[in-house]
Amino acid sequence: MAREPLGIDADRLWADVMALGAITDPQRPYTRRSFSARFIEGRTWLARRFADAGLAVRTDEAGNLIGRRPGRDLSAAVVAVGSHSDTVPSGGRFDGIAGVVAGLEIARALEDTNEQLDHPIEVIDFLAEEPSEYGLSCVGSRGMTGVLTKSMFDLTEPGGERLGDALRRVGGDPNRIEAARRSDIGAFLELHIEQGPILEARATDIGLVTSIVGIRRIEITFTGAADHAGTTAMDMRHDALVAAAATVSAVRRKADELAAAGRGYFVATVGILGVEPGASNVIPGRSRLVIDARTTDPALTSYFIENIDAESSRYAAEARVERTGFVTLSDGPPVACDQSLRDSLRQGARALGFSATDLASGAGHDAAFMARICPAAMVFIPCHGGKSHAPEEWTDRKAIAAGTAVMLHAIRQIDQSLPQRQRSRREAV
Amino acid sequence: MAREPLGIDADRLWADVMALGAITDPQRPYTRRSFSARFIEGRTWLARRFADAGLAVRTDEAGNLIGRRPGRDLSAAVVAVGSHSDTVPSGGRFDGIAGVVAGLEIARALEDTNEQLDHPIEVIDFLAEEPSEYGLSCVGSRGMTGVLTKSMFDLTEPGGERLGDALRRVGGDPNRIEAARRSDIGAFLELHIEQGPILEARATDIGLVTSIVGIRRIEITFTGAADHAGTTAMDMRHDALVAAAATVSAVRRKADELAAAGRGYFVATVGILGVEPGASNVIPGRSRLVIDARTTDPALTSYFIENIDAESSRYAAEARVERTGFVTLSDGPPVACDQSLRDSLRQGARALGFSATDLASGAGHDAAFMARICPAAMVFIPCHGGKSHAPEEWTDRKAIAAGTAVMLHAIRQIDQSLPQRQRSRREAV
Repeated sequence: MAREPLGIDADRLWADVMALGAITDPQRPYTRRSFSARFIEGRTWLARRFADAGLAVRTDEAGNLIGRRPGRDLSAAVVAVGSHSDTVPSGGRFDGIAGVVAGLEIARALEDTNEQLDHPIEVIDFLAEEPSEYGLSCVGSRGMTGVLTKSMFDLTEPGGERLGDALRRVGGDPNRIEAARRSDIGAFLELHIEQGPILEARATDIGLVTSIVGIRRIEITFTGAADHAGTTAMDMRHDALVAAAATVSAVRRKADELAAAGRGYFVATVGILGVEPGASNVIPGRSRLVIDARTTDPALTSYFIENIDAESSRYAAEARVERTGFVTLSDGPPVACDQSLRDSLRQGARALGFSATDLASGAGHDAAFMARICPAAMVFIPCHGGKSHAPEEWTDRKAIAAGTAVMLHAIRQIDQSLPQRQRSRREAV
Repeated sequence: MAREPLGIDADRLWADVMALGAITDPQRPYTRRSFSARFIEGRTWLARRFADAGLAVRTDEAGNLIGRRPGRDLSAAVVAVGSHSDTVPSGGRFDGIAGVVAGLEIARALEDTNEQLDHPIEVIDFLAEEPSEYGLSCVGSRGMTGVLTKSMFDLTEPGGERLGDALRRVGGDPNRIEAARRSDIGAFLELHIEQGPILEARATDIGLVTSIVGIRRIEITFTGAADHAGTTAMDMRHDALVAAAATVSAVRRKADELAAAGRGYFVATVGILGVEPGASNVIPGRSRLVIDARTTDPALTSYFIENIDAESSRYAAEARVERTGFVTLSDGPPVACDQSLRDSLRQGARALGFSATDLASGAGHDAAFMARICPAAMVFIPCHGGKSHAPEEWTDRKAIAAGTAVMLHAIRQIDQSLPQRQRSRREAV
């Protein structure tokens, strides 16, 4: 229960979350895949809402949609707030969206009361946080933090389009990607649903994220021979799916073992498995799978990947196929959130009468990239049953309002304390 | 080496096989999927070639393209020759095509010399022999033999189109499907590449098919929960792919065992495996696979399916998912080829100086359905390395010419002997 008025409009905030969620592929709610026509429709809607809130709107070279509210001090560093508006296929209405709209509501709340801060505020909708059809996640926050490399632009989606060309379609500029890298941001805050069961189970309003798991993605490809399923004797087969299936089983077995060992948070998943040519009467000539492994302890991932490397080679040999690919698609280390920003958020929660707890994030976030260029922290809000990346994903109106109000409260404090922190950081270098 | 002239134009035959093969989806040669625009393009080309050969061309209610050359005897039964012009995805240029063009060449050879037979000849391009996106194979030959049921028209492809509507698009008529059922065919012959290594290994020109394997197709669906791959602990998961992968391994293990037992021909394949939603950071909430099991001994299939039924249930329980589907998509029994037609083909091979051998077909064919309504037999010709259902599929110009000439020779003999055989069959009923 809040002790003082929240200072934001909870109904307006909720209405916008619902409105953005409603912009979905009608056949598979809730889907707004990055780079798709639906995504661009959502962006157009968002840009109008940003402009209506008095923000100066632009799209940067990395395809991030940015709304800026000027500060009193022209030389002051930016306080940035944001998340992403793209979704996984058949995802939910809050993952990413809640954080973007929270940023928008903070800007509107300041506008409503004509409150000018010393620091400029930027509301950011990062491009393509979810892994896209181009095989890369966090495209926009990589670009903003200088780690979106030229070679990544050559990644292609199954239809053959290059990521570089897709980026251009949504308003970015791959030839000038360096210009997206920021050095003028002094703090970054991101609100997000927890996507896990802890806050709900503990009946806690606010999660203060201590660290974000490191994520390693590995693509394994097996190549056999696409022979006739009726005329090729069992002992003459080169069935790529047989090797892939055994690898899926091994990933699960090893992940179960590491998670149970209790040395740290560990999960691993095969969420993508493709079979070619994919006809019931043709032996699979090719199979491709993607492993997603996450931990707070990088040593666990190394141990896991070494094991899967050896096992998948063995399964290829047993199925008489070749393991034609074992590629690290991405490898992000675990990231700690900024202690000082976390303190500001904790004070905000206390002042507004919300309960808060520390917790780690099992999901990756744009904040993990932003931490490379500025202090960054995250607010988690509870979601029903811990469900996410599914149409049932749900959080309450009150929960989003609480998280947004805590961030606004913290931003006012950060606005006062940031110059000092910036100076001391510069001295420490 | 042929002892006498073949009586067909081998170059014209070969040129037409190549021309039809060239009508392919350019991105994935050689692909002409049934019901697709490319398939209709191939059909249009074929219909013109049929007409150029003096055949009366029509499409029957089951979507089969039929070219008819009248016989001298107006009451005589039809001698039908044909195969199919559709392909698997990324298939070859001969599977099906060679048999259709062989039928066309036989009609042209008769036309060239103005040779009129007592019996009418029909050249048939059966609709959708390969399993289509609607999950059914041999659509046209099922229709012609009275086993294409109304419920099959409700099968849908992933885009949602019903098979009945697709049939209408290619010139069939689902409302009058009974009219496609034939009782006027006295013999059916089909030429096909072997799709296996035996003829090539034995350096034999002609395979005389003794029987065609029975094919059972089972679709298994597992349903779990599409939770977040980063925030859902290993012991909280309901991963549908984990159950599906274990089932793929079990199918292979059991098929290896049955094939090695030597009780009869047995192969089983998982050629289709789908994962939903199919993103690297989402736990698979649904997985669907299709098993194709083939044997000359139906008892082996029953034993196999019972085993997979039990095993897949167990894997579902272990992965904490539901096995939401275990459906028989099709179940065709093994079929013996007609002894008398085989004798005619054997005599044709002998007369023309070609070596011939008996062998079983591990692949299903339209002939297996045609055997329900008339005596049916098949000629196999060798193909390189036994390869099929792949772009490398290849057979020689001479091999197609030989098979076609043997069929023409046999047809002349059948034309003389058929009335007697028909009478004796009627008496036997």
